[in-house]
Amino acid sequence: MTELRPSSILLGALAASTLAGAETKPIQHDAEHYILLEQHAERWASEDEVIQKKLAEVREKNGGKRPNILFVLIDDVGFGEMGDPVLNHVRGYTTPNINAFARESLTFSRMYSEPTCTPTRTAILTGRLPVRSHMLEPKIVPPEGTGLNKDEVTIAEVLKMAGYNTAHIGKWHQGDIEQAMPTNQGFDTASFPLHNQATFNFMTPESEDDRLADNVKVRKTIPHYRMDKNFRPAGWVLGVDAVAGEKAQEWGAEPGKPLDYAYYDALNERYKTQVIERLNELASKDEPFFLNYWPQIPVNFTRRNREFITANGGTWVESMKDLDTHLGDLFAALKKTGAEENTVVVVMSDNGPMMQAMPESGYSQMVFRGFKGDTLEGGIRVNAYVRWPKVIAADTFAGDIIAAYDMHTTLATIAQADQYIPRDRVVDGLNQTSLLLNGDGYGRRDYLFAYEGAHLQATIKEQFKAHWPAPGSPGFALPVYDLYRDLKETKPLLATGMWTVAYFPDMLERHMALKKKFPDRPETSAEPYAGIANLRPETKALLEYYNKARKAAE
Amino acid sequence: MTELRPSSILLGALAASTLAGAETKPIQHDAEHYILLEQHAERWASEDEVIQKKLAEVREKNGGKRPNILFVLIDDVGFGEMGDPVLNHVRGYTTPNINAFARESLTFSRMYSEPTCTPTRTAILTGRLPVRSHMLEPKIVPPEGTGLNKDEVTIAEVLKMAGYNTAHIGKWHQGDIEQAMPTNQGFDTASFPLHNQATFNFMTPESEDDRLADNVKVRKTIPHYRMDKNFRPAGWVLGVDAVAGEKAQEWGAEPGKPLDYAYYDALNERYKTQVIERLNELASKDEPFFLNYWPQIPVNFTRRNREFITANGGTWVESMKDLDTHLGDLFAALKKTGAEENTVVVVMSDNGPMMQAMPESGYSQMVFRGFKGDTLEGGIRVNAYVRWPKVIAADTFAGDIIAAYDMHTTLATIAQADQYIPRDRVVDGLNQTSLLLNGDGYGRRDYLFAYEGAHLQATIKEQFKAHWPAPGSPGFALPVYDLYRDLKETKPLLATGMWTVAYFPDMLERHMALKKKFPDRPETSAEPYAGIANLRPETKALLEYYNKARKAAE
Repeated sequence: MTELRPSSILLGALAASTLAGAETKPIQHDAEHYILLEQHAERWASEDEVIQKKLAEVREKNGGKRPNILFVLIDDVGFGEMGDPVLNHVRGYTTPNINAFARESLTFSRMYSEPTCTPTRTAILTGRLPVRSHMLEPKIVPPEGTGLNKDEVTIAEVLKMAGYNTAHIGKWHQGDIEQAMPTNQGFDTASFPLHNQATFNFMTPESEDDRLADNVKVRKTIPHYRMDKNFRPAGWVLGVDAVAGEKAQEWGAEPGKPLDYAYYDALNERYKTQVIERLNELASKDEPFFLNYWPQIPVNFTRRNREFITANGGTWVESMKDLDTHLGDLFAALKKTGAEENTVVVVMSDNGPMMQAMPESGYSQMVFRGFKGDTLEGGIRVNAYVRWPKVIAADTFAGDIIAAYDMHTTLATIAQADQYIPRDRVVDGLNQTSLLLNGDGYGRRDYLFAYEGAHLQATIKEQFKAHWPAPGSPGFALPVYDLYRDLKETKPLLATGMWTVAYFPDMLERHMALKKKFPDRPETSAEPYAGIANLRPETKALLEYYNKARKAAE
Repeated sequence: MTELRPSSILLGALAASTLAGAETKPIQHDAEHYILLEQHAERWASEDEVIQKKLAEVREKNGGKRPNILFVLIDDVGFGEMGDPVLNHVRGYTTPNINAFARESLTFSRMYSEPTCTPTRTAILTGRLPVRSHMLEPKIVPPEGTGLNKDEVTIAEVLKMAGYNTAHIGKWHQGDIEQAMPTNQGFDTASFPLHNQATFNFMTPESEDDRLADNVKVRKTIPHYRMDKNFRPAGWVLGVDAVAGEKAQEWGAEPGKPLDYAYYDALNERYKTQVIERLNELASKDEPFFLNYWPQIPVNFTRRNREFITANGGTWVESMKDLDTHLGDLFAALKKTGAEENTVVVVMSDNGPMMQAMPESGYSQMVFRGFKGDTLEGGIRVNAYVRWPKVIAADTFAGDIIAAYDMHTTLATIAQADQYIPRDRVVDGLNQTSLLLNGDGYGRRDYLFAYEGAHLQATIKEQFKAHWPAPGSPGFALPVYDLYRDLKETKPLLATGMWTVAYFPDMLERHMALKKKFPDRPETSAEPYAGIANLRPETKALLEYYNKARKAAE
């Protein structure tokens, strides 16, 4: 979409002129939506009418300015690990600022993410199941040479077209190719690591030396068995600063200097400072803003140089405290700008906790079974809160099903920007504005397709969840679980299972049939690290190796 | 103690005269207390001085009247099954009144009960580990011929001696012998079932016929194999009404009428009405009151004639709704009396959920492992809230360890009645008034001895919990768990385990040594059903059988 981006001023005017009754083709949703729409069209239309009036009133109260959006996406925090003082006490640490924020918010108990970082981020950005853009799994080891396709229309692009100023700070994890960079996906500015925490935390010479990440101190490989120097790659690109329309710059890149924890810490400290600076800058402008703050903390793979002061003492739990303090600062900064009331703040996690890091992380299995990487509730059900003072009722709770990609469509609606959502593809995100504004029971989703990578592993309808015996395949004895009674998904139902054994495969069939009309995008490949101005010599050497290795497979 | 009970007026005067500096011998606690006392005596004494001043101020504000106490003890509700709107949504039902009450209260995250009903109730009543009075396990099948010994000094007796009016409504479960009756244990009046829900729910001809309690409809025993008609006893005593100093009366006893669910429902409806009537009556008096409301609901072993309207649909969950509505009514009634501000209200559960009733009950394993009947956290860690408007800070949370028997000693202190706690025995209950009034971090307990019946199964110190390999025996490889990190108690610690492998056995040794000086009471046996005026003919027949059966063993 970068080639389509007109100036924000022009688009702001355009947006304003088409806000009221823009006659656009309806968004193409997944088949299940139409089954619900047919049954609720009238009620939803009348709800939407009231909502549009309410939103207009809110705009009027804010001098015509649409609401700002601050989106905080937290990495790998399991359901129950934040926002609840009782569970805080159970776990031996506290998240007082997040708890206080939750009290000012609508809290969801059925927000579904994808099972891992990259696809959840793609879901929020594109409003679509990540399988549709082939953003299947988190890429860990650089260089990747793949990433988010330029033709995906991100929420940042949608808001940008509607006149928003946009900025991204923190974890991005959408690939290391030029078109995938935030500044080529709708953000005016971005400061982000090109890869994920792994590169800084457990793929550095320092961590390889001490192996504290795997809870083992000093376990070196016997040197004369180390035949492949690229098994442990080095020279990858670290933090990147970017401005739309310009070449990106690697931050803190010192040729010849090996990566270490100090760099990781410095980067995180920098994001903390930057997000508040950017917030102050954006809040002072005439246009509304969309600010993504997607911190890398609490994920933290080593105990070296860490402060351990909680009773829990897990490596990630200690960083939760850090995150919580920092979010407290961020919320205070927002208040100070005077923009608090006209800012929608979303705080949510991107997936369940990472099993491999337990118990060292300090996280634990809480009420659900499953972890990051699987489609059990523990993998995909996450804490989520939305605050919008005086518009969304504070201290309320919703048990409706909502998905990460719904945030795309919903925020676009709130920003009066839904006319910029593309009409030529399936958009899985539903408009959940009524749920936000009217609360519990006003959700518009009773279904969910839960993919792990390319594989459809589970499908949800109401409180019932089918585990596909083989990915995407009905099988005969479809196990169906009642999520209210069976939080651990261990006791398949008899009668409901036998009845829904017809309904779930029908959902699958409809879902797959629509995919024939709107096929999933193939993987997007390109030269890694293109578009970065200041590549270091070791990065160039890494690219050389990468190209050789690729050739070896041809 | 019944023989020692002087008139309440006299004692009220006595209490008042000795309140300020009553020079009584200190209470004998378990050995671990003195280890803490030695380290904190000065701080605790100065805290207590401030607390006494505070309590005096509160009394003064209330015209010299000490606070009323309403103690709601809920049966078999697992940690997380009430009081939390997010977890409500996760489970598909709501407890809005209990949630609202929790917001007005101090909420505990480490309240420990005993693993089952009878011992938890004994713990609260006596302020002692129930093993000390040989109240080991819930007795299910009547007649029992055992129960709480008259020489145990219950919190009702303590408060009675200090001039309180006392009443008990609901589940009692302290045995069917005369001395064990609430009105012989310090309560002026009582209305209670002599046994537990089992007798009404799954030991009736009606339930035996339909077997819905075990989720099987109609599974009769083949008649010619039914050789022993007393395998399924009948004629037991049902609900009992009692007034201190008088013979008790069985309520609704119709000779020849078999028990049915209608009787169970009628009894519960009656308790609901009675508790509000009694509350109104007690609140209108000059003396403060101690009112126990220990409902039988939500425990409910059949689906027959039940209304199922929640999304969860479990037999107990449906009754949770009923319980919640009723507690809402009770709290509203308290407010209406005008006594709300001067009433300490305790709401807690008596142990974890009953595993055998899952998933039919609708309950589930939440954050902990284990259930009613074991000493894993799931069995003994319960939801607990204490409200005292303007004295205990509302909407606060404490992670300190507190035990059910601490409520005895603490409530006695709050009522200025601790001088009536006996000095001739070990009292396990610690004075946790500072925790209640000063909040998180002001607890006085860092240890717990977790018994299942007569067997010491686990011992807790801070966040560490040792599972005794054989009950009450150190063994060599003592598994020690970190409760903050390992909620399911599955990963024994290495270093801490090796260090505390010395400390935990020392605790055990001290605990057992003190038992030599203060031995546990042997079982208290007596004629069942003595002291009830209107025994039915079938009850007399049952007693006859009981006496014959006992003789068969002599």
